Amino acid sequence: MKEQRISRVLAELEKLGLSQMLIVDPMSIYYLTDVYVLPFERFYGLYINRGGRVVMFLNKLFTIPEGVDAEKVWYSDTDPVMDYVAEYIDPAQTLGVDKDIKARFLLPLMEKKAAAGFVNSSLAVDLTRGIKDAGEQEKMRVASHINDLAMEKFKGLIHEGVTEKEVADQMLKIYLDLGADGYSFPPIVSFGANAADPHHEPDDTVIREGDCVLFDVGCIKDGYCSDMTRTFYYKYASDLCREIYELVRKANESAEEKIRPGVEICELDNTARGIISEKGYGEYFNHRLGHFIGLSEHEFGDVSFTNDWPAQAGMIFSIEPGIYLPGDTGVRIEDLVMVTEDGVERLNVYPKQLQIIE
Amino acid sequence: MKEQRISRVLAELEKLGLSQMLIVDPMSIYYLTDVYVLPFERFYGLYINRGGRVVMFLNKLFTIPEGVDAEKVWYSDTDPVMDYVAEYIDPAQTLGVDKDIKARFLLPLMEKKAAAGFVNSSLAVDLTRGIKDAGEQEKMRVASHINDLAMEKFKGLIHEGVTEKEVADQMLKIYLDLGADGYSFPPIVSFGANAADPHHEPDDTVIREGDCVLFDVGCIKDGYCSDMTRTFYYKYASDLCREIYELVRKANESAEEKIRPGVEICELDNTARGIISEKGYGEYFNHRLGHFIGLSEHEFGDVSFTNDWPAQAGMIFSIEPGIYLPGDTGVRIEDLVMVTEDGVERLNVYPKQLQIIE
Repeated sequence: MKEQRISRVLAELEKLGLSQMLIVDPMSIYYLTDVYVLPFERFYGLYINRGGRVVMFLNKLFTIPEGVDAEKVWYSDTDPVMDYVAEYIDPAQTLGVDKDIKARFLLPLMEKKAAAGFVNSSLAVDLTRGIKDAGEQEKMRVASHINDLAMEKFKGLIHEGVTEKEVADQMLKIYLDLGADGYSFPPIVSFGANAADPHHEPDDTVIREGDCVLFDVGCIKDGYCSDMTRTFYYKYASDLCREIYELVRKANESAEEKIRPGVEICELDNTARGIISEKGYGEYFNHRLGHFIGLSEHEFGDVSFTNDWPAQAGMIFSIEPGIYLPGDTGVRIEDLVMVTEDGVERLNVYPKQLQIIE
Repeated sequence: MKEQRISRVLAELEKLGLSQMLIVDPMSIYYLTDVYVLPFERFYGLYINRGGRVVMFLNKLFTIPEGVDAEKVWYSDTDPVMDYVAEYIDPAQTLGVDKDIKARFLLPLMEKKAAAGFVNSSLAVDLTRGIKDAGEQEKMRVASHINDLAMEKFKGLIHEGVTEKEVADQMLKIYLDLGADGYSFPPIVSFGANAADPHHEPDDTVIREGDCVLFDVGCIKDGYCSDMTRTFYYKYASDLCREIYELVRKANESAEEKIRPGVEICELDNTARGIISEKGYGEYFNHRLGHFIGLSEHEFGDVSFTNDWPAQAGMIFSIEPGIYLPGDTGVRIEDLVMVTEDGVERLNVYPKQLQIIE
């Protein structure tokens, strides 16, 4: 149990005018209890309220460590679990619910009128998770350090005749050998025109001279995620490739330089987007600048022009501008960065100058 | 677009008294449209109604093939996407929603009063997906055939001093070499007492003589999943291990023999559970007998004593009885089976007699 984190969530709930919440994101429950369960389709929940009640709802098939000092309600596959949950909810008060609770669990609570109302109160958990404590910061550093080392090895996998999929299939072992516990997400390996799709999946495309080679990769270590993108060029880089590469690099570096406590998150997006738009490539940078990250690879919190949160020390997010020219090429350069008391700490230090793979 | 499948879903919706539905499970959308998108935290939906409307809601970052003949509504990360969805819903009618739609998408539709009511209508999709057509049946056969071949290779990974994790880390390559596209779920490798936890994750436990070796493994091929469990013994099997092994094997085989069109699914669970309970091990078989499977590793549909669906030709599910003795040992034997016009086809033919690994 992480009493201090639960207190922070309850304080955020109070700001939202709420006294009780049902959390279902397994990572949020892990963050608050040190218990990790992967429930698949089964219900798994944590109920907390300002009276100090902390109740876990667990399927009898789940295994949790001894000594967890929350109240525990165990159910079987054939039990009416949402009836059990409803018994713990104060029907006279609104229930804050996790943004991720699914209709098949939420609708029965509504039909039972288990609470006076139902509102998405995930912000209370997400704002708490968004500011990493010292232990989390250190784990994030380690995961990104492994990612820096892995990137150099990934570059070494490129040779004549190789396909994206052949490269991607070797990455897991490299991560494991470097001490990671696995992927934080399936790696993106994109050659040439495939890089114009920011979410391209590795396929049987063979490398060709002049192709860009985009790696968007991350590992997980001790529960925390890394995530970095670098774009290389095979044999040579055309003038167009060099132009957009340097533009994206400038957008990345300029946004990172702006980071300090108090700066609005949207300012970072504006900075990077402004640099790219000024040169006429604005429409080819078609996604947000970044996302928060930690226990999950994508945590709540956009680094986009709609997010006016002031940056706070301990926030960790990605800075990943890109330019995507359909049918032609693409480039993205991404680091994880942490807001510090007086500026920014870059968790990735892998070089960003343009590299040709010979 | 799979018009015939959409018609089957609409017919099921009619039985539920519904005229419109919003589907969000990416696998269900793939099943109905041939379009697969992994939306992560972004909204991705398919709206269908009995007037013949078929509308996809897509983030501009998603990539889909040319020529998909549904209506398409594209949105950006900063657009109010649920407003767009609401415009397509008939506010005078109840909306059937996917059981998996999350609160952060469902609650805004409710607040907008986008429909006259909201009910979980996933049964309409799930019953349709539960009966595989000929093309799907063939893909399921191929995925399970690979799994049979892989199981023999996994058995060969066991040797003195090896850990569960070392074994598990070699499995992906074996699957890929056999032509699979990846795991259908992270493999379970459990030695000795670890097998008493049905969902144990591979760790640094070293194999010891007399241990059971439980592999619960599956691969994905052409989008369809396999899933099989076998339990071996290292060097020797104690009398207790032999007793519970043969009991579980009998439960597995007896349940499989009962399968034919018309038999109630719960009858299969009752058969297996009766055999295990009769010998006093009922409390140690603490999960349902099986689950439906196809595009997803766990599809809707329990093989449990609460499911009174009559078996129909084309249904594919697992039969996986087990006995788990905490702190001691465990055994589970699992096949995928398909209901045929006149009985059952076993998709796994890997032997089930007790095998000692020398």
